Amino acid sequence: MKALVFDSQLRIEDQPKPMARGRECLIRLLKAGICNTDLEITKGYFGFTGVLGHEFVGIVESSPTASLVGKRVVGEINAACQACEYCRKGLQRHCPERTVLGILRRDGAFREFLTLPEENLHVVPAAISDEEAVLTEPIAAACEILDQVSIGPEQQVAVLGDGKLGLLISMVLGSAGCQLTLIGKHPAKMDRLKDYPLRRLAIEVARSLDRSFDVVVEATGSPQGWELALRLVKPLGTVVLKSTFHGQIAFNPAAIVVDEITVVGSRCGRFEPALALLAKKTIHPVRLLQHTLPLQEGLRAFELAKQPGVLKVLLEP
Amino acid sequence: MKALVFDSQLRIEDQPKPMARGRECLIRLLKAGICNTDLEITKGYFGFTGVLGHEFVGIVESSPTASLVGKRVVGEINAACQACEYCRKGLQRHCPERTVLGILRRDGAFREFLTLPEENLHVVPAAISDEEAVLTEPIAAACEILDQVSIGPEQQVAVLGDGKLGLLISMVLGSAGCQLTLIGKHPAKMDRLKDYPLRRLAIEVARSLDRSFDVVVEATGSPQGWELALRLVKPLGTVVLKSTFHGQIAFNPAAIVVDEITVVGSRCGRFEPALALLAKKTIHPVRLLQHTLPLQEGLRAFELAKQPGVLKVLLEP
Repeated sequence: MKALVFDSQLRIEDQPKPMARGRECLIRLLKAGICNTDLEITKGYFGFTGVLGHEFVGIVESSPTASLVGKRVVGEINAACQACEYCRKGLQRHCPERTVLGILRRDGAFREFLTLPEENLHVVPAAISDEEAVLTEPIAAACEILDQVSIGPEQQVAVLGDGKLGLLISMVLGSAGCQLTLIGKHPAKMDRLKDYPLRRLAIEVARSLDRSFDVVVEATGSPQGWELALRLVKPLGTVVLKSTFHGQIAFNPAAIVVDEITVVGSRCGRFEPALALLAKKTIHPVRLLQHTLPLQEGLRAFELAKQPGVLKVLLEP
Repeated sequence: MKALVFDSQLRIEDQPKPMARGRECLIRLLKAGICNTDLEITKGYFGFTGVLGHEFVGIVESSPTASLVGKRVVGEINAACQACEYCRKGLQRHCPERTVLGILRRDGAFREFLTLPEENLHVVPAAISDEEAVLTEPIAAACEILDQVSIGPEQQVAVLGDGKLGLLISMVLGSAGCQLTLIGKHPAKMDRLKDYPLRRLAIEVARSLDRSFDVVVEATGSPQGWELALRLVKPLGTVVLKSTFHGQIAFNPAAIVVDEITVVGSRCGRFEPALALLAKKTIHPVRLLQHTLPLQEGLRAFELAKQPGVLKVLLEP
């Protein structure tokens, strides 16, 4: 089968179909999505080598539970030990022994067949299309903010960054109900959320809004985004750090201490609320889709995904 | 009257007795304490000029409320507008119009007489000595952590730093009940808490305890403390940033995002819980007292306070 592998460079490889062992299921890929984390991995920053990809929807080919076979599924990306302190509390996403699909010691989803433990899989309701389902993972990551930070209807919330993640977060936080402002550099990207109940603001305009937001979500993936977030947040407010990128960011600790700012790191989320939003058609992630390419054109797909202004690029077998 | 003034340099000045206007009370100083923030101000970092000092206990000489006259009081240091969004929520400590005693646009406590609004004052119960009462403000700042972060009996909590603030925080968190570790460089300082229910650990030993603490309180006032705090905290844990110092600190955002760490800036606290702890003799801040000097020897007192290994230095008229 075809697989898109990173090992100091990106290449298409012919691999044997993987074996599902123990609690694992074998899944036939329908669609997979390229995420910024994949792009960061190809810069060599995460030390990962193997099959890339962690956003997918597929069909179960084999499973320890017979009733799962033939079902259309999405999968949580952290495969955990199920025995440690974190797993026992239901926090498998933080299991120190975990492998992570296409990110940490586990081959990913950019191949014709992949494997994941049965407990990671969620059957996709029929109301959700493949193009929507493939985005369950980043939508869950956006939903994670609502699990971490209390966001109410009166709160002023800013999302910094109009990339894929920033737009998904804006959809999700908009659905939660709050006074939402999306701050970005690309009017064309922000216009995809034109009919959402949110204000769209150019980053240059936002720079004058010091201390205006109860919650600021940093999803630009740049040190400048972090600096702006600290300026925009009100005293006693919260900055949610969402983007993982390589490099250091700096700050004056007094800025956080004097105004008693809270900074919350936010990564993966539960799939249940993401699937519920998709099933109800509350959010419209297909608006982010820009290109779908066959897996064997994976290299070209990555080149496309890297271009400024390009949103989601999908792969299919 | 004598006053210890900073205005590009520190000096003793003869000043007229201040006038208490509007809601303000005139307070005769009994004792005042030198805090690290005062030392930072004398480096010119906060842009403050005027009478220094924000830790004090004194006797009310005049007040709009007659019954306050003659009472022994301590005072919250943020003098607020009482009208803005923050004040209306009871968050006067974050009023954007506030002045701050000896820190921001308001002369401080290192003088024979000072003024503060009546609503800032708390009468000191008779059970509390002057030497204890003068530390109410930093104890309240330590108590603030308990208002911000949920700390339970099973939680592993580390306090980084064995200076004045680190020791007070250790006393307060110890009284709250948790699995407490005080991490410092100076065995002699840490020994002052020998009979407290906490583990004392040299910083070199602590460096091997990666991901061991649910909560880490950074009270070293150094960039190295911040780096160590991020290493010591468990996934999903909390780092409380307590020290305000000049300069930048840097970090890799992925460290906070991947482990979903929360960073909480923490400044001033409510005086009520601090006075309650002092009245019950639950904590023993007088162990931090090292020197008491007359106000007119304020310059020598600052020199003493700057010396490594010296804890609290008090001034009295």
